[in-house]
Amino acid sequence: MRYKCIVSYDGTNFHGFQTQRGLRTVQDEIENVLEIVLKNKIRIHPAGRTDSGVHAYGQVFHFDSNIHITEKSMRKAINSRLPGDIYIKSVEIISDDFHARYSAKSKIYHYLLDLGEYNPLLNNYRYFYKYPLDLNKVIEASKIFIGQHDFASFTKNHKVDNTVRNIFSIDFEIDFPLVTIKFHGDGFLHNMVRIIVAMLLEVGRGKITIDELITIKEAKNRRLAPKLAPPQGLYLIEVKY
Amino acid sequence: MRYKCIVSYDGTNFHGFQTQRGLRTVQDEIENVLEIVLKNKIRIHPAGRTDSGVHAYGQVFHFDSNIHITEKSMRKAINSRLPGDIYIKSVEIISDDFHARYSAKSKIYHYLLDLGEYNPLLNNYRYFYKYPLDLNKVIEASKIFIGQHDFASFTKNHKVDNTVRNIFSIDFEIDFPLVTIKFHGDGFLHNMVRIIVAMLLEVGRGKITIDELITIKEAKNRRLAPKLAPPQGLYLIEVKY
Repeated sequence: MRYKCIVSYDGTNFHGFQTQRGLRTVQDEIENVLEIVLKNKIRIHPAGRTDSGVHAYGQVFHFDSNIHITEKSMRKAINSRLPGDIYIKSVEIISDDFHARYSAKSKIYHYLLDLGEYNPLLNNYRYFYKYPLDLNKVIEASKIFIGQHDFASFTKNHKVDNTVRNIFSIDFEIDFPLVTIKFHGDGFLHNMVRIIVAMLLEVGRGKITIDELITIKEAKNRRLAPKLAPPQGLYLIEVKY
Repeated sequence: MRYKCIVSYDGTNFHGFQTQRGLRTVQDEIENVLEIVLKNKIRIHPAGRTDSGVHAYGQVFHFDSNIHITEKSMRKAINSRLPGDIYIKSVEIISDDFHARYSAKSKIYHYLLDLGEYNPLLNNYRYFYKYPLDLNKVIEASKIFIGQHDFASFTKNHKVDNTVRNIFSIDFEIDFPLVTIKFHGDGFLHNMVRIIVAMLLEVGRGKITIDELITIKEAKNRRLAPKLAPPQGLYLIEVKY
């Protein structure tokens, strides 16, 4: 029996999604609960990892179990045992050929940028940007990433076989002082959204030009894009299948 | 030289405002920074305490120092050294007869209640109420607290001399699923807002009637109002002088 789950979590107090020895991770918390509920060690398979401090409203994972529990009862059994910073939004019994990672068609990430006065209650949930920013330039620069590109300059991990990804759209929702940058693509490399956001802000701040950003993209060399926007502004919103 | 400061903080990771040996408090964090900035032990005097987990957008405190620093420089010097969950919104040099606590004319507290689906990213910032609630009954019941009353039934601490307070208004702002309950009064006893909210919810849930709530108020006995709404929904918004 394969179960597909959609989960939301506050990334603040996790060392990312994936199990790390001795550190608190989302995966460990969920697997610990599943072991109690299903009386068996369970391995969960997420659509992708998220880093320390990154949040999720729509992370997806699957797991297998011989035990058949209704979707509603499973959801309740898990949620009643999870800590307050993780919540299972839905449980669905799904066919065996579904795989949370390999079946994913596209993902939506949002990056929350705050251009207003610092607010200590939102420090873990937005990136407070304190420099003057030409938002029109940021929006204009974002267009160079739309479509299929080799994003080798915009990932931490150069070792993946294929660094070509297709970004369908980058939309800006402006509700001053909050700016939400919405990424939709077929997949994202490690740190890709955070590096792109950081480099777009370099353009908006006047540190580099759009032409220079194009050159960086075409160079396929991360050393030319050494910035990284902080994790707390990033949200995994949805995985589409 | 007397300085008046307005401070906001995320109460999640504090054991309240007031110094407690061996525990992380807002007062200690601020006093530690002031000692560095002013090269002298400084004692700060808040408008009032807040409990563990309670937030503030407009807490006020004052302190005295022989050292004269401009308001802007003082604010910058403190903020650059404070942890991310505390932020000084303003610094004002003020006359010696100002006292953050004794000069206060009134206070505004908001209580944030969420009647929607649980959201792990807001768990530290709202009270997710999971029972069916008749909001009209809650609003109607709130009216019994408007005006001058003895709130002895609605405080943790029976030992204060005077438990009479004047609540000017209790307003409801409904932006479903968020319900913000706005209290404005000349002062609030320890736990008073949280106990009143909890008892209003008992009425809205049908556990007690408005007449019973009036009886509880008139009995001046906390044992009749044993409920306490959780701290993370409570915000000290403003202290008026």
